[in-house]
Amino acid sequence: MGEFELLARLRERLPPPGPQVRLGSGDDASIVVPPGATATSVDALLDGVHFRRGSASLAQIGGKALATALSDLAGMGAEPGEAYVALGVPADLDEPGCLELIDGLAALAAETGTTLAGGDLTRAPALSLTVTAVGHAASAGELVTRAGASAGDLLAVTGELGGAAAGLLLLERDSQARSAFRPHGDSNDYRADDLADLGSTEQELIARQLEPRPQLAAGRALAAAGATAMIDISDGLGGDARHLAAASGVRLQIDASALPLAAGVAEVAGAFGRDPLALAIGGGEDYELLATLPRERFEAARAALDGQGGPGLTAIGDSLAGEGVEIRLPGGEILEPAGFDQLA
Amino acid sequence: MGEFELLARLRERLPPPGPQVRLGSGDDASIVVPPGATATSVDALLDGVHFRRGSASLAQIGGKALATALSDLAGMGAEPGEAYVALGVPADLDEPGCLELIDGLAALAAETGTTLAGGDLTRAPALSLTVTAVGHAASAGELVTRAGASAGDLLAVTGELGGAAAGLLLLERDSQARSAFRPHGDSNDYRADDLADLGSTEQELIARQLEPRPQLAAGRALAAAGATAMIDISDGLGGDARHLAAASGVRLQIDASALPLAAGVAEVAGAFGRDPLALAIGGGEDYELLATLPRERFEAARAALDGQGGPGLTAIGDSLAGEGVEIRLPGGEILEPAGFDQLA
Repeated sequence: MGEFELLARLRERLPPPGPQVRLGSGDDASIVVPPGATATSVDALLDGVHFRRGSASLAQIGGKALATALSDLAGMGAEPGEAYVALGVPADLDEPGCLELIDGLAALAAETGTTLAGGDLTRAPALSLTVTAVGHAASAGELVTRAGASAGDLLAVTGELGGAAAGLLLLERDSQARSAFRPHGDSNDYRADDLADLGSTEQELIARQLEPRPQLAAGRALAAAGATAMIDISDGLGGDARHLAAASGVRLQIDASALPLAAGVAEVAGAFGRDPLALAIGGGEDYELLATLPRERFEAARAALDGQGGPGLTAIGDSLAGEGVEIRLPGGEILEPAGFDQLA
Repeated sequence: MGEFELLARLRERLPPPGPQVRLGSGDDASIVVPPGATATSVDALLDGVHFRRGSASLAQIGGKALATALSDLAGMGAEPGEAYVALGVPADLDEPGCLELIDGLAALAAETGTTLAGGDLTRAPALSLTVTAVGHAASAGELVTRAGASAGDLLAVTGELGGAAAGLLLLERDSQARSAFRPHGDSNDYRADDLADLGSTEQELIARQLEPRPQLAAGRALAAAGATAMIDISDGLGGDARHLAAASGVRLQIDASALPLAAGVAEVAGAFGRDPLALAIGGGEDYELLATLPRERFEAARAALDGQGGPGLTAIGDSLAGEGVEIRLPGGEILEPAGFDQLA
């Protein structure tokens, strides 16, 4: 099957385009009429760097590539609009594999109201997915950058932390166990039934690693509630807090005892001899949002998120004059986020 | 040097953003306020698939990646707006190499008025550049798709054909000669002085292969002049004509004797035992535009392109009722474009 034929098969599987899309995939370019301002982000995921084909299904890999790009739109408070997917296909990925990958992408696109409006397909030495996501807002002023925090603002985070990192620990253990049982590598592919003997909490943690969901509705609600700065924390709370602090020119003080750990993180951390705070602060891939808000706006923002039935909103610290990030441990000790590399 | 530090160094080298860009590289996403409709295209270029690091400088590779994406915007008649670049960096590409690559990209961005508004940087097994280009138009109706040709329209092409394919033949010969002279591979890198003994016509042909320029002004002029359908012919005149014919539901008849061959193509084809028409029709990478126009609009369109001092416009055939593409050879024989694979 040639490139053009496969592209036609892939296009058949895409959800219908949104109203702003005048021409989708298949021409030199898509045509879109944005309602106001656009927010655009690009993310590349590569086999061996960002995921391992042995530890995730192709549908999960496709979904995670789109989730990663959409999470950046969530961090701006944008409505999801269009996504463009460049697929690098290695020799050992066959046509059904490509279709499974696109099905995973298309499922999250449909769930989030994102139009897959174009792409590119090429041979590659390893599987790669580069996703450009375009979001919309009525005006540029409705979008929230990293740069607007003021001293005196409250620092808040959506959802729960550490789950993706705990899930990764479980996956790596599982992968080693599988290698031991299948020494001749007759199947290194991920199988759902490999996880069947795990408890539901552990399965939930693994899903946080393999099937992240971008916090799009929460991002829009936070923007509408008056968030002054916002960032998605897929690189880890500590590092992304540092980015926000630098862009805004403030010092962020995080109260470690206030951090909302996902259920099971403490247990998994204990079992692997890790500090649960290190998973929450340094682990990354939680795809939650970190935002600053004027103190008086926090309760309304929390109520808005609760009203959506989405992730909760937790106050975890303060924005102060100064620079950098400090983390106050329960015992009173103060650490820089980089200190969690030593704890981990 | 870490990813964030390198990104900061790369950002320093970018040309200033266009007026529609409210926030460029460095946040979760760019913020742009498009003046009307957007045209968006993504193209991935990989070492070993679309180029070879031994045969082109890193600056040329960077420029060509952007040119490839911008050429799709030219094919829509769009104004160039923003580009987003995902770079896959192999272990043997050092920091000066990354900067040279970006300098090549930034030079073409400055030349075309394109803002490099974001990107991603990741380790990769082979050098890869995935460029998403966003163009603008006052309204969706100003953009020209592949689908609007009518029976009775004239078929026209910008510039000259076959030059990139002839340049590739010269490069491949040169590369083999260099391998013979440097059997221990002490330098497989491209050196400008390797080409110094070539004539100016041959150097021009090689530049068409290594340093293509997207026909952005010509595309906008053709759109303004009433082009009914348009496509960039980077995949080759024959194949791209087939795409336009299929999208429009017409039959395209191309007069081979009317095709504007680039200077030197006939000579290079002769020296390599190839048919010059095969290079012009099947060779690809010419980054010219193929358009259909109402017959009475052709002269005005040609005058508009001449007035720009850009590429010429040549009538090369007709749009007829029916489907597919036929090529009338000087002797009266009629071929399908695929027939040129045999001639080549």
